[in-house]
Amino acid sequence: MTAEARDRETRKADTLAMLGTPAIDVWVATASATGAPHLVPVSLAWVDERVVIAVEATSVTARNVTASGQARLAVGPTRDVVMIDAVLEETVDVAADDALGAAYVAQADWDPRRDTGYVFLVLRPVQVQAWREANEIAGRTLMRDGSWLV
Amino acid sequence: MTAEARDRETRKADTLAMLGTPAIDVWVATASATGAPHLVPVSLAWVDERVVIAVEATSVTARNVTASGQARLAVGPTRDVVMIDAVLEETVDVAADDALGAAYVAQADWDPRRDTGYVFLVLRPVQVQAWREANEIAGRTLMRDGSWLV
Repeated sequence: MTAEARDRETRKADTLAMLGTPAIDVWVATASATGAPHLVPVSLAWVDERVVIAVEATSVTARNVTASGQARLAVGPTRDVVMIDAVLEETVDVAADDALGAAYVAQADWDPRRDTGYVFLVLRPVQVQAWREANEIAGRTLMRDGSWLV
Repeated sequence: MTAEARDRETRKADTLAMLGTPAIDVWVATASATGAPHLVPVSLAWVDERVVIAVEATSVTARNVTASGQARLAVGPTRDVVMIDAVLEETVDVAADDALGAAYVAQADWDPRRDTGYVFLVLRPVQVQAWREANEIAGRTLMRDGSWLV
């Protein structure tokens, strides 16, 4: 009982709606310089077409992203996926940028500014793909090289 | 409205039940030798305390796991997570092991033996963690160095 494949305009609209969902989480995959994979779920904020996450500055994720400059992100359940390859645009102490902090807290369901040692990682998407089932593998790429294709 | 933290015995029972769920998917994070992260959702079979996935032999996931020997896996939604660090035990052509193929198909909702070019990656857990919300971060490690702690 697979639904009909969505067209690409619908997938982009669904993707933007998902990324803007209150209290939604993102799977963040990163790698060490020696090729050890890491993966954690964290809260997401979608701010000015950037994925913003808050992690401890000393966490594996922060260290990997700072060193490599890249992460691969997944939002949604496994059969309604938004996959994002992203590059690190900036790392910001959570107390250092009021506008960014306010935007993060407006979407996420916790406030990292109440703890110590957290940083915002601002991740810029370079590739975005969206698919539900196998019939949506074709046409799944919605952004390439940082530009929306639809 | 966070539920009370589960004890570790309950978490292990919940983990094993989740891993044995029919037609369940797993997030598979891997890394290239140069530290590029990869992440895909695929079907999972839990066979003899191993995570078995079927991927194309030429896929990024297969190439990364073959080269590095390791993967980090996540099962369940972001707020009811089983996180597994695993090592590659063996790579098997899907047509080469009838018992493994039968076990995979008995749990997954597709049969990779009907396609060409697929391999089973048999992944042995070395660390297993399970948590739902922040109050379950303490006590989340259920397996370490390949041995169950509970």
